[in-house]
Amino acid sequence: MHIGFIGLGNMGSAMAANLLAAGHDVTAYNRSPDKVDALSAEGARPARTVAEACQGDVVVTMLANDDAVEAVSFGDDGIVASLRPDAIHVSSSTISLALAERLTAAHAEGGSRFVSAPVFGRPEAAAAAKLFVVAAGAPDTVEALAPVFEAIGQRTFVVGTEPKAANLVKVSGNFLIASVIESLGEAMALVAKGGVDVDQYLDLLTSTLFDAPAYRTYGGLLARREFEPAGFSATGGLKDVRLALEAGDGLQVPLPIASLLRDRFLTLLATGGGHLDWSAIGALSAWESGGPGPNA
Amino acid sequence: MHIGFIGLGNMGSAMAANLLAAGHDVTAYNRSPDKVDALSAEGARPARTVAEACQGDVVVTMLANDDAVEAVSFGDDGIVASLRPDAIHVSSSTISLALAERLTAAHAEGGSRFVSAPVFGRPEAAAAAKLFVVAAGAPDTVEALAPVFEAIGQRTFVVGTEPKAANLVKVSGNFLIASVIESLGEAMALVAKGGVDVDQYLDLLTSTLFDAPAYRTYGGLLARREFEPAGFSATGGLKDVRLALEAGDGLQVPLPIASLLRDRFLTLLATGGGHLDWSAIGALSAWESGGPGPNA
Amino acid sequence: MHIGFIGLGNMGSAMAANLLAAGHDVTAYNRSPDKVDALSAEGARPARTVAEACQGDVVVTMLANDDAVEAVSFGDDGIVASLRPDAIHVSSSTISLALAERLTAAHAEGGSRFVSAPVFGRPEAAAAAKLFVVAAGAPDTVEALAPVFEAIGQRTFVVGTEPKAANLVKVSGNFLIASVIESLGEAMALVAKGGVDVDQYLDLLTSTLFDAPAYRTYGGLLARREFEPAGFSATGGLKDVRLALEAGDGLQVPLPIASLLRDRFLTLLATGGGHLDWSAIGALSAWESGGPGPNA
Amino acid sequence: MHIGFIGLGNMGSAMAANLLAAGHDVTAYNRSPDKVDALSAEGARPARTVAEACQGDVVVTMLANDDAVEAVSFGDDGIVASLRPDAIHVSSSTISLALAERLTAAHAEGGSRFVSAPVFGRPEAAAAAKLFVVAAGAPDTVEALAPVFEAIGQRTFVVGTEPKAANLVKVSGNFLIASVIESLGEAMALVAKGGVDVDQYLDLLTSTLFDAPAYRTYGGLLARREFEPAGFSATGGLKDVRLALEAGDGLQVPLPIASLLRDRFLTLLATGGGHLDWSAIGALSAWESGGPGPNA
Repeated sequence: MHIGFIGLGNMGSAMAANLLAAGHDVTAYNRSPDKVDALSAEGARPARTVAEACQGDVVVTMLANDDAVEAVSFGDDGIVASLRPDAIHVSSSTISLALAERLTAAHAEGGSRFVSAPVFGRPEAAAAAKLFVVAAGAPDTVEALAPVFEAIGQRTFVVGTEPKAANLVKVSGNFLIASVIESLGEAMALVAKGGVDVDQYLDLLTSTLFDAPAYRTYGGLLARREFEPAGFSATGGLKDVRLALEAGDGLQVPLPIASLLRDRFLTLLATGGGHLDWSAIGALSAWESGGPGPNA
Repeated sequence: MHIGFIGLGNMGSAMAANLLAAGHDVTAYNRSPDKVDALSAEGARPARTVAEACQGDVVVTMLANDDAVEAVSFGDDGIVASLRPDAIHVSSSTISLALAERLTAAHAEGGSRFVSAPVFGRPEAAAAAKLFVVAAGAPDTVEALAPVFEAIGQRTFVVGTEPKAANLVKVSGNFLIASVIESLGEAMALVAKGGVDVDQYLDLLTSTLFDAPAYRTYGGLLARREFEPAGFSATGGLKDVRLALEAGDGLQVPLPIASLLRDRFLTLLATGGGHLDWSAIGALSAWESGGPGPNA
Repeated sequence: MHIGFIGLGNMGSAMAANLLAAGHDVTAYNRSPDKVDALSAEGARPARTVAEACQGDVVVTMLANDDAVEAVSFGDDGIVASLRPDAIHVSSSTISLALAERLTAAHAEGGSRFVSAPVFGRPEAAAAAKLFVVAAGAPDTVEALAPVFEAIGQRTFVVGTEPKAANLVKVSGNFLIASVIESLGEAMALVAKGGVDVDQYLDLLTSTLFDAPAYRTYGGLLARREFEPAGFSATGGLKDVRLALEAGDGLQVPLPIASLLRDRFLTLLATGGGHLDWSAIGALSAWESGGPGPNA
Repeated sequence: MHIGFIGLGNMGSAMAANLLAAGHDVTAYNRSPDKVDALSAEGARPARTVAEACQGDVVVTMLANDDAVEAVSFGDDGIVASLRPDAIHVSSSTISLALAERLTAAHAEGGSRFVSAPVFGRPEAAAAAKLFVVAAGAPDTVEALAPVFEAIGQRTFVVGTEPKAANLVKVSGNFLIASVIESLGEAMALVAKGGVDVDQYLDLLTSTLFDAPAYRTYGGLLARREFEPAGFSATGGLKDVRLALEAGDGLQVPLPIASLLRDRFLTLLATGGGHLDWSAIGALSAWESGGPGPNA
């Protein structure tokens, strides 16, 4: 397929490379063009404008936040105005339900199509084409994207016919991961201060009831206090918790753990840890217990 | 081995039956004797008093709370006074660190030995001899108990030489499970109100980052609102969260999610749900969102 | 002075009436014109458009939320475009810091002036001209408004030269009031369930360390469960807590009690209490303790 | 009256001195006798044992916690065993409801009488005989104590006939004060980081809706960061929040702000601030926002 790819950060670069590796024809755009050069070496066609990346069947956006997606989507040279009839905009970054609704309406009005397809997985998983894709949109449109999803992920979950359903699942999933980080941070601060060996403790947890990637990955990062370089930054984590709270506000669902997480991320940012991996919020319990802070 | 077994609730009956099945000679005691009769049919010797259950090499206690363990341990006819020299008291229920310390000291003074060996697993796992045993105590004593642990569990984790270390790991583990229940409850209330199919959502979670028994078990109970009969009651859950908070207090470790959980369990009990499975706290988010309460 | 007044709800009608009573020449505008008729009877000149209300020295806006203020402020017929040079826009409703900044810039660019002057006080205080005015803006502009503030309030506090400072003080003050409601709600649920007479309890509190209007007003509403009609609605309370959290987010200040309050208001709205007085969140503790809910 | 006084800390010394000043005959006991010497200079009779302090009509205990009160109350030489028939034990320190119940029963059985009469006020108020006394017990017994209460306080509130009612009111009152500290700490961190002058802010609050001693006292301590010497220590604050949570647990009343406060106090203690005034928890918000910690 002819695929435009917009947004070549850690995640996007890996995803675009996998689309190339799967034989797709990829035209790549990034605000700072040096990222495009690296991908060109792997066979991508460079686009100097957003519109140039919108000439194919599909354009994928993988950007940092709502503002970045809005900037490339709307306006005279934006995706909505540039896509040819029936072409598909796939939004793979974590955006708000409100923006997903707005994009759904704008594309419908403009004659193009829109699918939300955020992904679960850290940069390593993106590089290995092992992402989990959560897709929602019109069934035939989602089906038409199978070659795209297969190139970047290990499995696709279709969660609804309205695109925003995928965004809701994604923000709730990130909320659950952050909940794992916080609860592990509390439990590890407790047992460590009580003299239990933390590695042995994690081995016990992940061999039994918590034998899951989320516990292995984040438990390991916490045990090693490995917060740099960030696989996913605390700043990004705060953004995603905000999206969960915003969704909860819109649907009138109180989310007390999400409220706690928001305060945790704000504390981390205010004390100089915005650049750290988001797992660093799990070190705040140790800090509050008299141990070293996340930046130590 | 000659093993006394005190406490024949859901968990204890199954554990004692597995000790019998493994060829041990079991003398069983329970406050209400009808439970003893059932086990006698499987080959257990009935004890009419605690002291009668303390004539062998080992006595295991599997009781509801600190008070119950204190009641059978201390006093003229209690375990400490009744065990012969070098015999071992194994405490498998979830008790406070403070009581574990007190029992450690009392047995040392009395010439007998004490090991904390709480278990992870619900009644089904107990019946299938699939518990996870978390043991702590003097190394040779713990080693001597291998035949006991093998008969009741699938794996034993030795987490320290002071018995209370095992209790700390156990209460922190139960705290982590309750955190899973609460975070799942919030996430499921959110996506359900947003129109996502909850079974599909759980399938997604447990196929990806949350592919762990804790998420499958409690996600399923929440999705089915299957809170009766209780595998482990809300009253028991409150007790265990109290123990986690008490441990955090003693070690000066703030535990904000545990604080939230305590309030959740109190709400559940105050509104008539103390007899429900402890997973019912996960239904409080739906209730707060305008949906049915845990008792509905 | 010639004063335009936009927004004739409970609060605005009373404030405009007091401006009339103080001898000012008031032109009044409201989206639904029946409110204007009532005020005309007291001597106000009716305005059929926002622009008509902007022909004098000062225009005051007293509206429900950011959206409403934006709707009358911007656009070809809005306040910014309609005010004559040097005329002053006084925003007395509780708006976001972001909107205060935007209005400050827009008026500066348009040659008019902007002052934030939110007020503390419920409708009774507004009717009695006993509001507390919190003003911020250029010193000479604020000074010029003295006759306006004197007509509506009992005292004016000038808290800065940037208008948004007044909004920050206002949202933080509303946060403190909501904190009083929540903490009183918890304490009263506790002592009431323990058999203490609640009226006597409030008398004790407000005769001693808590001898303040906030405790008398909200303690009384809670003791009488007098949640209708709303002096200030739960929907408005949620809006204000959101503004506090938004300010905290922008300044990177975690606000755990505000996070709790947000969840409380969401619960109240989701269970059908959005129309109740915001003090009704204080009844949630009794509800969680097995007592009647806010809607009972 | 002949009054024994047990416990000569900051509060107790001042109260005993006021009893002397009012003409009572005071026999004083303290674990470390140097405090007794100081009071003897003002006319008190020194007691070398608890029993010696129990020979009069009334004995007042003003001690740090439950353990200290238990230590002097029970046992062969304790208050219960030493008081003559119908003599009255007045417990003025903040103790648990459970201990109040136990003392009520023990005195009833022993033929003496028991009244709970905790006080509100910091050491300055105790010195000035301006405490507020919260009393509960049999009506004639409470009435008989009027001369005692008048000597130490400015007003007495009788809140019930069961002594523990006074303890419930006291722990709930301390909970409300700590809530004021926490909410002020959050609000002040917010407005200060937003550039508002904190003294001016407090003046505004305490001139309007929060015109109460609790806001003036604790707002001032926070604004001046005056945490040493402690009028009431963080360690004492944690003890009292524990009592509130324990009361809530017993009555099945969830107390989310109290849960937050407990975590705050634990953080303060774990980071070295247990000796600071309990108002220092209000500095944690500034710390989390990137400002100086309570110990700075």
